[in-house]
Amino acid sequence: MRAAQFYAAGDVRVEDVPAPQESTDKVLIEIEWCGICGSDLNEYIFGPFAIPSPQSGPHPLTNALLPVTMGHEFTGRISYVPDSISHLKKGQAVVVDPRYYCSSCTPCSQTATNSCEKIGFVGLSGGGGGLSEVVAVKPEAVHVLPEDGSAKVDLAAAALIEPLAVAWHALSLYLSIAPYQSGLADGENEDLSSIPVLIIGAGPVGVAMSYVLRARGANIVYVSEMSKARRETLRDAGIVTEIFDPAEVDVPQMVKALTGDGVSVVFDCAGAQPGFDSGCQSLRFRGVYVNLAVPKAPMTLPLAPFLWKEIMYKCSLAYNQDDFKSVVEAFVLGRFQGVEKMITRRLSLEDIVEQGFKELIKPNDHIKILATPKRANINGSI
Amino acid sequence: MRAAQFYAAGDVRVEDVPAPQESTDKVLIEIEWCGICGSDLNEYIFGPFAIPSPQSGPHPLTNALLPVTMGHEFTGRISYVPDSISHLKKGQAVVVDPRYYCSSCTPCSQTATNSCEKIGFVGLSGGGGGLSEVVAVKPEAVHVLPEDGSAKVDLAAAALIEPLAVAWHALSLYLSIAPYQSGLADGENEDLSSIPVLIIGAGPVGVAMSYVLRARGANIVYVSEMSKARRETLRDAGIVTEIFDPAEVDVPQMVKALTGDGVSVVFDCAGAQPGFDSGCQSLRFRGVYVNLAVPKAPMTLPLAPFLWKEIMYKCSLAYNQDDFKSVVEAFVLGRFQGVEKMITRRLSLEDIVEQGFKELIKPNDHIKILATPKRANINGSI
Repeated sequence: MRAAQFYAAGDVRVEDVPAPQESTDKVLIEIEWCGICGSDLNEYIFGPFAIPSPQSGPHPLTNALLPVTMGHEFTGRISYVPDSISHLKKGQAVVVDPRYYCSSCTPCSQTATNSCEKIGFVGLSGGGGGLSEVVAVKPEAVHVLPEDGSAKVDLAAAALIEPLAVAWHALSLYLSIAPYQSGLADGENEDLSSIPVLIIGAGPVGVAMSYVLRARGANIVYVSEMSKARRETLRDAGIVTEIFDPAEVDVPQMVKALTGDGVSVVFDCAGAQPGFDSGCQSLRFRGVYVNLAVPKAPMTLPLAPFLWKEIMYKCSLAYNQDDFKSVVEAFVLGRFQGVEKMITRRLSLEDIVEQGFKELIKPNDHIKILATPKRANINGSI
Repeated sequence: MRAAQFYAAGDVRVEDVPAPQESTDKVLIEIEWCGICGSDLNEYIFGPFAIPSPQSGPHPLTNALLPVTMGHEFTGRISYVPDSISHLKKGQAVVVDPRYYCSSCTPCSQTATNSCEKIGFVGLSGGGGGLSEVVAVKPEAVHVLPEDGSAKVDLAAAALIEPLAVAWHALSLYLSIAPYQSGLADGENEDLSSIPVLIIGAGPVGVAMSYVLRARGANIVYVSEMSKARRETLRDAGIVTEIFDPAEVDVPQMVKALTGDGVSVVFDCAGAQPGFDSGCQSLRFRGVYVNLAVPKAPMTLPLAPFLWKEIMYKCSLAYNQDDFKSVVEAFVLGRFQGVEKMITRRLSLEDIVEQGFKELIKPNDHIKILATPKRANINGSI
């Protein structure tokens, strides 16, 4: 079968590889759509980073080394189910939680499988990936997307479930800590609809964050984004309150003018120093700064707002089973209406390097590029 | 009267100033002992920083400009009480909460007067200070230290109550957030006696932190300190579990060997990059990093432990009324046994510049230097 294999930075090849075989413990999925993630792009530019290499040694859970098949944001249809599995059926539309985790380390034992000490991903750590024709995955990672009679699930939009889960986890993390941080009583939850939020950056994670906030009831969402095209895409989606150009607007000043005390939480989806500084200044007393980005350069802690405002800094990494399941449920319930607007290009797997990776390393205004191994998908949808 | 007045960096003068007068709203305190704080030293080296200057404008709560009298860690005896105040008496031994706060801003309205938007200090912001003979303070800031018959309160040791309150606040802040951060159930508190703690730096704040941790039941306290003399002083005090020389010991590795998973909380009482890196590496999954220091150089956030371990970063600033009151109570109950070992020099107010500030800007192993305006105190105690 055809698969996009990572060999080295700047060296991803779509080539023939052996297709995964039927087995007693894995489900086979024929891929419909697979997104290119920021971490895929990082690997393409700077890698191997998370991808196991001769230098890092084989991945502890897959035992694999590069070359590996890329792609972890994918949907497809089941083409084979082992006899022992009764709840899945051939032909079902599915989305896959692509994580590998050990289930036995300290974080895993506290249900924080997102922080597993051996965390890995289908599509990065070996064992196949979504940028291919078929992938073999463990049955518990498979989430069925219901198709009622003629109602056809949009399997392209559903490929956004994985990045939405990243945003969902960051919001859950904020909600779990917000009452204590705010000095509310035990168990007293803040009402998201009255909480002002600032998102730094409207790239794929920032836009996913916007959709997740709307789906979970946030009503006062500000976004700071440098790219005009991205501001316009997000404005057209009509899901946030205000979008600022930080080159034109003093964001902390504006946020304070609009909110009084500042925002309660910042979600940093950019990972650059100006955003960090501006975000911390925009927080109210005892606000929370949640970073979802992997900054390209070291970040300096802006000490003054931390000293004077008792703000808190945390990072959010990936998602756990509950996050993924919640996003699938919300997606099926239609709570991410319009999310397919995040998809700014659909292309054939064969074109993933020239029209995907090479496009994304140039200055660009893409939110999410999806690839498919099925030519019919391209003809049908573009 | 005599007072140490701050004019500029490197320019503190002990000179004659008008003594505060009897009034209807302030209590007069004859100073017994006053400590030199790290923030006093920062002012002496880099100031004016918190001290109001023509550049910064007058302090919003005192309306004062430099020169100001220094010193905010002080004890004394009441020499005058306004008629309207019945709970205080002339001659009583006292310690004073030196803070000015507005009582009306957002933090003040949430009892976080330590984060008052206009926060100031007697001894930094005008209105007199402890490095003088007499100071006038509001009655509610005065805490009486009981003297039972012949039992004489050590008013030198009691001058340490203010730095102990700084450490007390940092620990309270950790305890308020620890259950949520650790994923414990609402209201379920961690038991301090089983929580491993790492203190970075055994200067005055680090040693105060050690005494506070012991007073509040912590049993597993590790300290990392570069100075041999400070390590020996703290070792002699016998209040912590282990003290490491970070030049000799890989602190994160050692802490993991001793604890299994790492420490639950780091109190950074040094504010330097190597300690920040080492402290974050020493934390267990979902540990908490509490910074009490004001770093002299920008600090780079060590991203990897934040990304992988869901750790949290917070700063702790000063203390509120509850912290100060709790420390006075614990002090009176004898829960800081041996704390007077923190005092490494006692000198006359007249010598504060030559033997105090100038000594502290040289490489030195002092923990706390106290000054007194009363020659009899020096003769009696050294």
